[in-house]
Amino acid sequence: MNMLSESLGKSERLQRSLPVLDWGRRYDRDQLSGDLTAALIVTIMLIPQSLAYALLAGLPAEVGLYASILPLVFYALFGTSRALAVGPVAVVSLMTASALAPLELQTLSEYTTAAAVLALLSGLILLGMGILRLGVVANFLSHPVIAGFITASGILIAASQLKHILGVTAHGHTLPEVLTSIWHELPNLNWPTLIIGVAALSFLFWVRKGMARVLVSKLGFEPGLAATIARVGPVFAIVGTTLVTWLLNLPGAGVKVVGEVPTGLPPLGLPTIDFALLGALVGPAVLISVIGYVESVSVAQTLAAKRKQRIEPNQELIALGASNVSSALSGGYPVTGGFARSVVNFDAGARTPAAGAFTAVGLLLAALTLTPLLYFLPKATLAATIIVAVLSLVDLSILTRSWGYSRADFLAVLTTIMLTLLVGVEVGVAAGVGVSLLLFIWKTSRPHVAEVGLVPGSQHFRNINRHKVLTDPSFVTLRIDESLYFANARRMEDLIQARVLQNRDELKHVILMFSAVNEVDFSALESLEAINQRLKDMGITMHLSEVKGPVMDRLIRSHFLEEMTGQIFLSQYEAFERLKRVSKEQIAEPSAA
Amino acid sequence: MNMLSESLGKSERLQRSLPVLDWGRRYDRDQLSGDLTAALIVTIMLIPQSLAYALLAGLPAEVGLYASILPLVFYALFGTSRALAVGPVAVVSLMTASALAPLELQTLSEYTTAAAVLALLSGLILLGMGILRLGVVANFLSHPVIAGFITASGILIAASQLKHILGVTAHGHTLPEVLTSIWHELPNLNWPTLIIGVAALSFLFWVRKGMARVLVSKLGFEPGLAATIARVGPVFAIVGTTLVTWLLNLPGAGVKVVGEVPTGLPPLGLPTIDFALLGALVGPAVLISVIGYVESVSVAQTLAAKRKQRIEPNQELIALGASNVSSALSGGYPVTGGFARSVVNFDAGARTPAAGAFTAVGLLLAALTLTPLLYFLPKATLAATIIVAVLSLVDLSILTRSWGYSRADFLAVLTTIMLTLLVGVEVGVAAGVGVSLLLFIWKTSRPHVAEVGLVPGSQHFRNINRHKVLTDPSFVTLRIDESLYFANARRMEDLIQARVLQNRDELKHVILMFSAVNEVDFSALESLEAINQRLKDMGITMHLSEVKGPVMDRLIRSHFLEEMTGQIFLSQYEAFERLKRVSKEQIAEPSAA
Repeated sequence: MNMLSESLGKSERLQRSLPVLDWGRRYDRDQLSGDLTAALIVTIMLIPQSLAYALLAGLPAEVGLYASILPLVFYALFGTSRALAVGPVAVVSLMTASALAPLELQTLSEYTTAAAVLALLSGLILLGMGILRLGVVANFLSHPVIAGFITASGILIAASQLKHILGVTAHGHTLPEVLTSIWHELPNLNWPTLIIGVAALSFLFWVRKGMARVLVSKLGFEPGLAATIARVGPVFAIVGTTLVTWLLNLPGAGVKVVGEVPTGLPPLGLPTIDFALLGALVGPAVLISVIGYVESVSVAQTLAAKRKQRIEPNQELIALGASNVSSALSGGYPVTGGFARSVVNFDAGARTPAAGAFTAVGLLLAALTLTPLLYFLPKATLAATIIVAVLSLVDLSILTRSWGYSRADFLAVLTTIMLTLLVGVEVGVAAGVGVSLLLFIWKTSRPHVAEVGLVPGSQHFRNINRHKVLTDPSFVTLRIDESLYFANARRMEDLIQARVLQNRDELKHVILMFSAVNEVDFSALESLEAINQRLKDMGITMHLSEVKGPVMDRLIRSHFLEEMTGQIFLSQYEAFERLKRVSKEQIAEPSAA
Repeated sequence: MNMLSESLGKSERLQRSLPVLDWGRRYDRDQLSGDLTAALIVTIMLIPQSLAYALLAGLPAEVGLYASILPLVFYALFGTSRALAVGPVAVVSLMTASALAPLELQTLSEYTTAAAVLALLSGLILLGMGILRLGVVANFLSHPVIAGFITASGILIAASQLKHILGVTAHGHTLPEVLTSIWHELPNLNWPTLIIGVAALSFLFWVRKGMARVLVSKLGFEPGLAATIARVGPVFAIVGTTLVTWLLNLPGAGVKVVGEVPTGLPPLGLPTIDFALLGALVGPAVLISVIGYVESVSVAQTLAAKRKQRIEPNQELIALGASNVSSALSGGYPVTGGFARSVVNFDAGARTPAAGAFTAVGLLLAALTLTPLLYFLPKATLAATIIVAVLSLVDLSILTRSWGYSRADFLAVLTTIMLTLLVGVEVGVAAGVGVSLLLFIWKTSRPHVAEVGLVPGSQHFRNINRHKVLTDPSFVTLRIDESLYFANARRMEDLIQARVLQNRDELKHVILMFSAVNEVDFSALESLEAINQRLKDMGITMHLSEVKGPVMDRLIRSHFLEEMTGQIFLSQYEAFERLKRVSKEQIAEPSAA
């Protein structure tokens, strides 16, 4: 049907093979050195992150490490982005917690199994979408809905981590629940924990905002190096607070620590699958897949654009699907491409997906050797890491920006944010998509119709209310600014009828200008027939102008063109020239629009 | 925003008063005589119909009579159609049966109460929609979905009545259930019932197809009178079979009859309301309201157009709402405007809604005096009346017509028909609406984009693949045939990118022709910014042409116009003239589209 989409289709098909075969064949020493450097920095960054996000998902810390090994290798094999760093991320961890909470599982092992099953389902859904080439599904998440969802999730995550900073136990999955629960527990707060938490938070905020500047100005570091050190800053917080906790034996004073983390390789094997569990997790798995995919692809596209590379959305589905399946088979939980670590990977010089594979080796070594050192790591420090990371995602300006541009977009953002905070992440994002679609349908069901006239000295026609244009009392031209379909067909009948009755005596012709009509469905065809018949009964002829090829193809297949009283003009100018009565030509003054 | 819709709004507001005050003031003898004649004929027609449809809804026969008295009076007070005849109709009766079946009510009195509650809910919903001016909601039922639903309902109703013709008991609410149930009961069929049923069916088919012709040709009747006699033909079947059943005492031979019908005024009062019942009936009530409204308004509009009168959709909601509430308060069940009886009313000369009020008096007299005569009326005769009436609604040609015109419309019809027959009326119509909307969204998410060139000798631009047009290698003009919104914004980025890469070396400008872009939402704005940035990076300038007023208003509110590398041309011709390099002008030959 369309040349452009066909040629796109061909270039897509060429790129569908295993991407590693492409870049792997031309791998050289330069790329190796860039990839190794990037891998080292991302490894240092990912260790605390993976532990922290596992905690956020309600899982034991080692699950975060396991989810950062095989998935990276599989993404390196199948992914099309040169810089994307896959692993546990904040929003998906929150969604995992929110998906598992209603199951009311009794033991921790049931909980980790359910998390693996969620990753398996999510992986299979992504693979299925990739095979069916359904990458376009992600387009139904509008930018404002995504922005609103990420912002609300950031607020929710930060609030949920407050309990670790305060050293209290609290529950809940909505903002009011979490805050009320913390408020009630406030009398039980643990002062040593609070001191560690606030110290870690302050340090991390400083790392993010001021450290690089101080390193450059006071210590004479080279700016690039300073920025890299700032990126891995959380490691200093972890080492520092772990040492203090160990030296002062703070667990004895009530400071909660990570505790014993098993040393060794991730456990390989299919998680135990219970069909009742599968049923309960399919819905959340679909949302996790779509949200994870959208987050990952937008990061990948942003970075690819900087180096003029290309991301293949359907291949990304395959790659993320394989990553999640491998996560499920190695004791992990749902993963996707993360924003912060991908940027670090890119800035640190990653040239190919091999950087991800090297990072996986780093994490594997960490799982084999470092875990005993994590015993005294305070949970408050991990919570501080999470809070600082997610607050950078919170951007309430999307509310003011969308309000300024379009009320419909604002409504979609507001719905997403409010429902995510007050009801839950799944309801929030689903409602955002639903509201966006309904508003679109609503808008197209109430189309703009402009009466147009000729712009003097041109062959161009514009709205008589906005421009000084020529018109003729014996005919009226209505430009219909929407595809005609069932939801607006009857309204169009009414609008045309109302306009015709305004100067019924002089009127001899009605021209419907179809330049913006991209489709006429069966209901609208019947409405056109009704309009034609009614105008005929009044002695008025109906014409069409500027009917597009695809619309024309369809009209030809119906009987409408035989019944239509007037004719079809290739251009509106042709219609105007043919129908005008030169004697009566007059200039309409634009009135207030 | 729009002159046309504003002027329509004003004329709407003028007509909103109680319509009876308008026509009632100018009521004259001529109108009285037309209305009385019509009322007499409609009364004769409505007596068997109201009994039959009550039977179809699973209700006692007298409920049909009660539903044909007060509702007609209330429609006469509030309605805007001069010829609509309100009362029990086939599709709504089927939907009532389908709504009440799952409740598993024990006694007949619970069942009639639930039917009245359904009418009350439906009436309140219609009133609410009328007050909120939500008549447009009906537009979301596309013509093909309505046609498919009516056809499938007709088949389902006819099948459900077969048991009365065969004299067996059968159950089920889907076509397979009904047919299987009848098949299993076939050995128990009652021969006297079958003979009466087939005789009534044959007579009624003959009445419909051949009676008027015979009356004119053999008996010399005047054609109009003959047609009227044919319309009231069912009365002859009823009188005849009732007499035969009484004379031969057929109930003793197993022929089921209507039996004792209470004589007297309808019982007035609010039905007993049980909140669990309310909850279960709200969903079905919404569907009954919308379907009933759509059926009624389309009949009213068809008839109004013939006499160049006008129907006010929101006032119709109020009128139908009041009718249904009054039906609920007088022992009836949901009602709406019926097609066949409205046509009879119109043809018989009804001039004002007073005809409806006179019909109500006729039905009231029938309820007071005729009911003892109905004792021996066989149910098989009523079933035959229903079958003949609904088979005229069955029109499977909608499948072939929609297939020929548009696959999307065909799919919506097919879904509606199949699900109505196989799952149920509510699921059928809901799925039809859902599929129509999803297909519309799907189509708009994959828009047509045409590369256009100048039609020689004009200022008009058309698709280079369909027309012989002028182009220039230094710039490409892409006409985007869809509003830009989140579901197609990213696809648009890809399409433009793909086209630009085709002759990246020569290309200096990209013009996006916005003549068919009726809206740019926030997501699409961000995509336009991304496209502008990418083209800028390649040294290509981006322009827009023929941006409509409402779209321009919105773009001005953003920062996009400041960032855009090129300019905005009022007309595409202006853009072409400004950018063309005359030396290199060339004619593109149209290739196969």
